[in-house]
Amino acid sequence: MTIETAIEAVRKVLGPRLETTEAARSLHGQNEGYYPVTPPDAVASPETTQEVSEILRICNTEGCPVVAWGTGTSLEANALALRGGICLDMSRMDKVLDTQPEDMLAVVQPGVTREALNEELRATGLFFPVDPGANASLGGMASTRASGTTAVRYGTMRENVMALEAVLADGRIIRTGSRARKSASGYDLTKLLIGSEGTLGIITELTLRLQGQPEAISAAVCAFPDVASAVDTVITTIQMGVPMARIELLDAVQIKGLNQHFNATMEEVPQLFLEFHGSDSAVKEQAEIVAEIAADHGGKGFEWSTRPEDRSRLWKMRHNAYFAAKALRPGCRVVTTDICVPISKLAQAIADTQADMAGSTVKGPILGHVGDGNYHTALLVDPDNPAELEEAKSLAARMAKRALAVGGTVTGEHGIGVGKMKFMAEEHGQGWSVMADIKRTFDPRNILNPGKVVEIN
Amino acid sequence: MTIETAIEAVRKVLGPRLETTEAARSLHGQNEGYYPVTPPDAVASPETTQEVSEILRICNTEGCPVVAWGTGTSLEANALALRGGICLDMSRMDKVLDTQPEDMLAVVQPGVTREALNEELRATGLFFPVDPGANASLGGMASTRASGTTAVRYGTMRENVMALEAVLADGRIIRTGSRARKSASGYDLTKLLIGSEGTLGIITELTLRLQGQPEAISAAVCAFPDVASAVDTVITTIQMGVPMARIELLDAVQIKGLNQHFNATMEEVPQLFLEFHGSDSAVKEQAEIVAEIAADHGGKGFEWSTRPEDRSRLWKMRHNAYFAAKALRPGCRVVTTDICVPISKLAQAIADTQADMAGSTVKGPILGHVGDGNYHTALLVDPDNPAELEEAKSLAARMAKRALAVGGTVTGEHGIGVGKMKFMAEEHGQGWSVMADIKRTFDPRNILNPGKVVEIN
Repeated sequence: MTIETAIEAVRKVLGPRLETTEAARSLHGQNEGYYPVTPPDAVASPETTQEVSEILRICNTEGCPVVAWGTGTSLEANALALRGGICLDMSRMDKVLDTQPEDMLAVVQPGVTREALNEELRATGLFFPVDPGANASLGGMASTRASGTTAVRYGTMRENVMALEAVLADGRIIRTGSRARKSASGYDLTKLLIGSEGTLGIITELTLRLQGQPEAISAAVCAFPDVASAVDTVITTIQMGVPMARIELLDAVQIKGLNQHFNATMEEVPQLFLEFHGSDSAVKEQAEIVAEIAADHGGKGFEWSTRPEDRSRLWKMRHNAYFAAKALRPGCRVVTTDICVPISKLAQAIADTQADMAGSTVKGPILGHVGDGNYHTALLVDPDNPAELEEAKSLAARMAKRALAVGGTVTGEHGIGVGKMKFMAEEHGQGWSVMADIKRTFDPRNILNPGKVVEIN
Repeated sequence: MTIETAIEAVRKVLGPRLETTEAARSLHGQNEGYYPVTPPDAVASPETTQEVSEILRICNTEGCPVVAWGTGTSLEANALALRGGICLDMSRMDKVLDTQPEDMLAVVQPGVTREALNEELRATGLFFPVDPGANASLGGMASTRASGTTAVRYGTMRENVMALEAVLADGRIIRTGSRARKSASGYDLTKLLIGSEGTLGIITELTLRLQGQPEAISAAVCAFPDVASAVDTVITTIQMGVPMARIELLDAVQIKGLNQHFNATMEEVPQLFLEFHGSDSAVKEQAEIVAEIAADHGGKGFEWSTRPEDRSRLWKMRHNAYFAAKALRPGCRVVTTDICVPISKLAQAIADTQADMAGSTVKGPILGHVGDGNYHTALLVDPDNPAELEEAKSLAARMAKRALAVGGTVTGEHGIGVGKMKFMAEEHGQGWSVMADIKRTFDPRNILNPGKVVEIN
């Protein structure tokens, strides 16, 4: 009865902002992956850090699980309340609290989405660069250590969060980091919380590092005879120090999906989508250098443009690649993979995956943030065919094992959630038990998103 | 007698590489700061991770303190064995184990110095960018989260270490991170160890992120009427997105010191030393933009050059600023400060410090990594005058308090060591007790560099 007792106590704090309706619970049991709907017992919508602190104090006393929820766009069921309890919907904590253009930073509540922040920043000449595609909440992005298309230039959430306020399992409120751009003052609690998927504390405020809006932006697209040529182009580009803003690989299947979805006519071969940020002359120079490198590797039809409409069309396609992939097989669910390997191993990793998929009943497109060595497959499965789901999972497991064998990671940016737990022991070895020790220290009653990241008793 | 027992047991492992001579102990009790010589009881020089593991296992059983030692160049006595025990001299673990130019990474043992690594990398077209001035060991740099003149462009050790091997207090060997450029796989143990000053584990291997050697490098120098004008130049430059490689402020006193030390004739006013990395046209464009910004803020005599000899002369001066400062007062010791504030607060912080110093008996130059909001004073004190040392410490404490009041940190890059411990509670609040909890989890017997970073019983 501890969960029920906790819910009643939290209701006294939040009033109608504690919901137990079927509709609210079911909405917060959804996920973008292939996992079954898993409703929490209640949905709490705090508006202040103090309320989060009170809720956690109650739940810690009662041993009630607490899972934070941003926009529900994560792909690994990271915010699914596997053991029931209270879902903390952070969407009412959606204020931009402070913007300091001179210091190139903004302080936000966790429910602010990245698009809402960039809208608010427009007039300042600054922007927040991390772009996972979905209009995710910044708290959720920090919790999963999200990145996306621009990480090759601007880094991931790891590099772009300067400071946090977080509530610990027992209700204590801590502040980590500072507004200084660097510090050598003690253990890096900010980085420890980023990527912890809500298992060590609930993020209630983020201080984010901003970037200047580039004077000029150009985009380009280029077709390649095969994946290896495209990847070699990327390796040379990065080694030459061209500061690419985006450099995305889409395989022939993904291009086919986009052609269908957007009624486009791209050649159905591997393509690179690229973006350059800088001064007028810098983006011109960068595009020319990359065009030459691409040509050396058999690239064809390299076209670049600074026209905003060309650029938005390109990135609209890229951002909708997931939905275009889904549309290749109407009614399907998607098993997403998120391998990240050293870039020298990327072409082989993708070739192995293509060969593996060719011998499998499960198919799907491949696309990747190739500048980071990170690629995804979207394995399209019939939700009513358990054998297909199993085949997709074992295909994904083989990719994961091959990635670990070459010094990579099973998740570049989606997080562990549910689907990657089974690889943790192999990826981290003894380090995984150290993570479990840290979890026990932060959350001895295991109330914070239990069952995620680590396994503890 | 536990320390003695441990020493004898370690002697059985290392033979003559365990030293207890006065000379060895005294050498490893030195520091670059103003702290008295504090010799450890013994100096152990392991050659393998396995030896480090055996030593830690012994010391954990015996409760014997263990402090790792790189090159002894840290400024806060970070590697001083405050409670005696064994100093682990890592200088024999000095191999570059692997270089992967395509992946732009190198794997090194902790005793490799940054200059030795860059020497070895020369033919690859790559370099390791973090440059604290001193030819420090990479293990030491990671442990103190070092940075220096190039952090404004390339980041600190935090951003440039991809993976670690470390030995925990009980002798377990863990591997953190991977060779992938990003990962969302679990708690960031790499970042937790970086900056932990040897209190959570001993780093035995580092995987480092490398950068392409720029096609062109130019350097520039520019004089300003006052510190505020120089800092405003920096703020505008960074907001405009000019990718400065170095941007260093030296105040009039520091310039005077350099003039004396190097027989130079720079105008004794605040100066910026700058460096640009990029293509030939990019460094030209960057220098022109900055020249214009500087002129708008009253900068005079902006000169830039791509001649290597001009550049090395400039950075030789900058790198020897500490020694030039010391030479301003022969026989002195130096109390170094390491404030880092949001850049918008930097001009005021320096002005407050100058005013404070003007009313004090203790003087010294000011210089800073202004792109990061980080500045140092080198307070020159007579080692035989305790009153002066006290005055320097209280001057430093007032700077620290002012930095914390504007959202800064008391140490941008030197680490906590001995001198910054007294500010930890104020800087981190509840977060400091969380750090202590982490320390207890990693090192329950408190054998790893005890007395540093956190206070535990």
